[in-house]
Amino acid sequence: MPRIAILGGAGYTALELIKILLRHPEAEIVAVTDLHEGQPHVAMIHPSLTGRLDLCLEQLSPAEVAARADCVFGCLPHGVSASLVPQLLRGGTRVVDFSADYRLDDPEVFATWYNQKHADPERLGKVVYGLPELFRPQIPDAPLVANPGCYPTSAILPLAPLLKAGLIEPRGIIIDSKTGVSGAGRTPRLTTHYTECNESMSAYNVGRHRHTPEIDQILGTVAGTPVEVIFAPHLVPMDRGILTTTYSQPAADVSEEQVLQTLRDFYADEPFVRVVDHLPGTKDSWGTNFCDITARIVRGRVLTISCLDNLIKGASGAAVQNFNIMYGYPEATALL
Amino acid sequence: MPRIAILGGAGYTALELIKILLRHPEAEIVAVTDLHEGQPHVAMIHPSLTGRLDLCLEQLSPAEVAARADCVFGCLPHGVSASLVPQLLRGGTRVVDFSADYRLDDPEVFATWYNQKHADPERLGKVVYGLPELFRPQIPDAPLVANPGCYPTSAILPLAPLLKAGLIEPRGIIIDSKTGVSGAGRTPRLTTHYTECNESMSAYNVGRHRHTPEIDQILGTVAGTPVEVIFAPHLVPMDRGILTTTYSQPAADVSEEQVLQTLRDFYADEPFVRVVDHLPGTKDSWGTNFCDITARIVRGRVLTISCLDNLIKGASGAAVQNFNIMYGYPEATALL
Amino acid sequence: MPRIAILGGAGYTALELIKILLRHPEAEIVAVTDLHEGQPHVAMIHPSLTGRLDLCLEQLSPAEVAARADCVFGCLPHGVSASLVPQLLRGGTRVVDFSADYRLDDPEVFATWYNQKHADPERLGKVVYGLPELFRPQIPDAPLVANPGCYPTSAILPLAPLLKAGLIEPRGIIIDSKTGVSGAGRTPRLTTHYTECNESMSAYNVGRHRHTPEIDQILGTVAGTPVEVIFAPHLVPMDRGILTTTYSQPAADVSEEQVLQTLRDFYADEPFVRVVDHLPGTKDSWGTNFCDITARIVRGRVLTISCLDNLIKGASGAAVQNFNIMYGYPEATALL
Amino acid sequence: MPRIAILGGAGYTALELIKILLRHPEAEIVAVTDLHEGQPHVAMIHPSLTGRLDLCLEQLSPAEVAARADCVFGCLPHGVSASLVPQLLRGGTRVVDFSADYRLDDPEVFATWYNQKHADPERLGKVVYGLPELFRPQIPDAPLVANPGCYPTSAILPLAPLLKAGLIEPRGIIIDSKTGVSGAGRTPRLTTHYTECNESMSAYNVGRHRHTPEIDQILGTVAGTPVEVIFAPHLVPMDRGILTTTYSQPAADVSEEQVLQTLRDFYADEPFVRVVDHLPGTKDSWGTNFCDITARIVRGRVLTISCLDNLIKGASGAAVQNFNIMYGYPEATALL
Repeated sequence: MPRIAILGGAGYTALELIKILLRHPEAEIVAVTDLHEGQPHVAMIHPSLTGRLDLCLEQLSPAEVAARADCVFGCLPHGVSASLVPQLLRGGTRVVDFSADYRLDDPEVFATWYNQKHADPERLGKVVYGLPELFRPQIPDAPLVANPGCYPTSAILPLAPLLKAGLIEPRGIIIDSKTGVSGAGRTPRLTTHYTECNESMSAYNVGRHRHTPEIDQILGTVAGTPVEVIFAPHLVPMDRGILTTTYSQPAADVSEEQVLQTLRDFYADEPFVRVVDHLPGTKDSWGTNFCDITARIVRGRVLTISCLDNLIKGASGAAVQNFNIMYGYPEATALL
Repeated sequence: MPRIAILGGAGYTALELIKILLRHPEAEIVAVTDLHEGQPHVAMIHPSLTGRLDLCLEQLSPAEVAARADCVFGCLPHGVSASLVPQLLRGGTRVVDFSADYRLDDPEVFATWYNQKHADPERLGKVVYGLPELFRPQIPDAPLVANPGCYPTSAILPLAPLLKAGLIEPRGIIIDSKTGVSGAGRTPRLTTHYTECNESMSAYNVGRHRHTPEIDQILGTVAGTPVEVIFAPHLVPMDRGILTTTYSQPAADVSEEQVLQTLRDFYADEPFVRVVDHLPGTKDSWGTNFCDITARIVRGRVLTISCLDNLIKGASGAAVQNFNIMYGYPEATALL
Repeated sequence: MPRIAILGGAGYTALELIKILLRHPEAEIVAVTDLHEGQPHVAMIHPSLTGRLDLCLEQLSPAEVAARADCVFGCLPHGVSASLVPQLLRGGTRVVDFSADYRLDDPEVFATWYNQKHADPERLGKVVYGLPELFRPQIPDAPLVANPGCYPTSAILPLAPLLKAGLIEPRGIIIDSKTGVSGAGRTPRLTTHYTECNESMSAYNVGRHRHTPEIDQILGTVAGTPVEVIFAPHLVPMDRGILTTTYSQPAADVSEEQVLQTLRDFYADEPFVRVVDHLPGTKDSWGTNFCDITARIVRGRVLTISCLDNLIKGASGAAVQNFNIMYGYPEATALL
Repeated sequence: MPRIAILGGAGYTALELIKILLRHPEAEIVAVTDLHEGQPHVAMIHPSLTGRLDLCLEQLSPAEVAARADCVFGCLPHGVSASLVPQLLRGGTRVVDFSADYRLDDPEVFATWYNQKHADPERLGKVVYGLPELFRPQIPDAPLVANPGCYPTSAILPLAPLLKAGLIEPRGIIIDSKTGVSGAGRTPRLTTHYTECNESMSAYNVGRHRHTPEIDQILGTVAGTPVEVIFAPHLVPMDRGILTTTYSQPAADVSEEQVLQTLRDFYADEPFVRVVDHLPGTKDSWGTNFCDITARIVRGRVLTISCLDNLIKGASGAAVQNFNIMYGYPEATALL
């Protein structure tokens, strides 16, 4: 049974990850790290874990982590991750990285969008993007998996099959996403202060969100031609969930049924993508690893509507799905 | 002082209307009608009005209403309104109609989108669309004003100046709107049951929402050419507020500053439109008659982001703004 | 593996029950009944179950249910349950009943609080009250288990050990409870309409809530003397969760530590009660079968604060806990 | 027209105060202070005020404030207030103080509950407690008014008339209050981080909340005997509103109607207290200066249920009510 370390254990993705792994028959959590002073018990930081996991938040070096764990889930901020991953890999641990550090192929693109030089640029372009629905064959043997961003997963899953089938134009794709507040993390800020975002809705980082190049890259790979999406994220007064509405130009004259059937065929054998006829709500996928997708044609434009739980299929559930594939467990283990 | 009757007094728009009119020095509410059994006191139906308005919900014929009131605010469902308005007008009352019955010029378009024959088709095309920012000159003498829909106001205000200035293409305009639940009215339904829509977000009536032809018509008038928008409304877990994000093709090479300046110039003298540089949140306009607007250029596409309170600028506030213009009061009376 | 039927499958408790049972290795759901027209697929009624459970909502007689199932979970309204349970038991099925029909010992008390004659009065007084923490020994052999109410569980768990230990007076116990809206069920009503209860908090059924005699009875049994609690429930704008604050007179001079230790000792071996030092929030137990409890002494009064998820420990989780005990499975199966 | 300065202008009470004063025909806001760097425009800090108030947040000494303003509303933290008020008063300005600094009569009690020595102890005991319903006659001539706390107002208004009439015992009064999150202010903290308090409810500061001695003191004054209440505040996932449920022992055999009639009589001429028969919800008083109150007798215990908007009747509305009385304006000016 792989021994597991979780780095950055005080946040929401770590919390959800722990809850999922506690249900996993083949995973043993042996360490949870964080920078909290005084090494508090995890239940002090996450009261919902009271009586569930008897570990303290430790401050460990990569070498110490590698000595204890076979597999590391890195719930760390971008920048920090790339400074630790090389040592972890050298130490022989496998890594599922939640940060954006290993998702982009091009260090220049990383530098442009993240305002910093990449700490491990040679590795870029060789790391598998952990979206099993598109890249499953590369995952079993990967020492390092870049766990996808929440928005990218919600946008790529509906669009990739349509681009692949040539049903939509790769140019001018509009992605209007709406997310719950947990996507902003657990650090208190005025923008995520209860009385600021409750009963309010707003757009943010329009055209400047860092998930943009990630979506560009994966859709570009799928389409076989450069893609530049127009991406506008919005903040919604709810804890969790992403609803993504996309608008594309059809490549040819396509019917709604054709679009839906293309999606259904593409995901026929996927355990965690549900192509549905109705307009899905984020609550349908709340707390699950599912991404629900549908499509419509409106006045000649192809629309997709998709939703998922940003902390599960958009983060910790996807990470365990990758873990299951990496270690040869049934892919849905602990995820249903 | 005009004597005022409110038809359809049990709903949310009537409640907000009453609250605004109670602050108005030149308006006396003399009747509130509704179909509730037993003519309950308004405070029974709206506890927040306890001690504020000593009237009961009556069931009155149009003739009875016309005998008592100088001006009627009709908060009635579409279809019902057009069956009463002709008699009210014949009785000499002026009418601000909240329903969709008099917003469209073409009875055929009405029949197509509302699945019913119009009851008063001859009047269509002659009724002023009560958006003062575009049609103010026609309002003072109007016997009947069609109060705009909430979504249309949120979409027309940012787009009209850009179309008028020729900055954006009239074809392929995408309107992605997000609304609070009060827009769905006060009748209990599963879709507006607390535990169904709380902590969930979904699209609804995609491409089929009845506000579509209304937006088409007004933007078409402004652009001087037919417009067919792609309109996708979404339901957000909050009481009030609409946030509308639009995506258009620029007609020529325009800068973000040029777009913003066009909006600023157009609304320079407007009391209730605020063109802002930041990305506005619905809470900024909560409970007010303001519509806040900004714009961005993202990868060559023109985006506008606007917000308003669907019950105020999207309904009852706009109605009082029209009333003030109709009766020659300062336009902001009771609205600040 | 027991074959399971769920009666009343369209509501929230049934939905949570299905989700839990789908994780249970020793339970096979063979039928879900409801009165919905046209026998829709469960995924039509509960979109979150898409791809999870391939059954339709059927309308079955008790005999048909008994022929197909070994164990029935009855998620039916009070009154309805008692009209079906006798036939189910005669047919040899075991029943976990979510309704209030078999919780009270005295048909007169039932008639008084529920405004109806009991349909199966002879059975009252012989049915185990399915709160394992107090009545575990009687559950394994029970053909019928009365699953406790959500409020009673939240109040009885903190108070019973203190009454049993003689630390608090059985007279004048005040129970101030706050619940999320899912406790009101899934039938749309004005009181549970999103825009009525969002951003509002209110008391309801003060002194008249039907869970009152249930709390009286169980606490009275524990205390060995009649108990009459003062119970005031409140509605909170959230989906789930009950927070119960109780106020009692100490029977003698007791310290806070003594009260806490009494609770800790009483629940030392319980898998689903967590006695904590901090003031718990309902989110700590969200989606879990845990009840979190703490206590304080304030100016000589003993306060307990407890919370649980009304749909899990307050309904479906408790039901599966009972099921596990009835069938000899480890008590936490499918519940962690 | 009095020139008004608002100290501590970046918080929620200041925002509401500004909104109310902008409607006031006899108040001119001349200065808003705060410690924000760079003296930002108020609309930068409060986007909802865009176009409403053209002032910047200044850092002013008490002397500078006194030179410019006739009346000061102090929205400052406790401790800070008492260090400035003496200079303001010496400068000839009148002060409505929102902090707790001048509410308690006894510097020792202040020191005990607020963990600090009082900076202006001689003044204590001579400052009017600005609850007009109890102390109106002392307000017109007061140079300094201590604006009541939000919880105290919600508890004192229902209890004071019953104590005064001798209907309830002054001993053992239990006050279970539930508040929206805005009561915690605008400074981001983990406890008021959206995803921490949304969908959760919890008790906090049980028995230790600083409003306790304030309630004790005023009820003690009314009762003519020392009062020590058992006070448990709770945090509710909503922006605004306090619902307070109190439990008292009747002093004699009283009926529910007698209790209600005592309340009705006491508040018969009050513009902002509404004694109602139904159980009020916080939404009934949302955004208003009303406090709604009802009462019930449950198993021999007297319960009151009251609600108000913590930012209006619990803070800024009450302050303007005091201001109106201080300056001889109609008491409801700008408050309806």
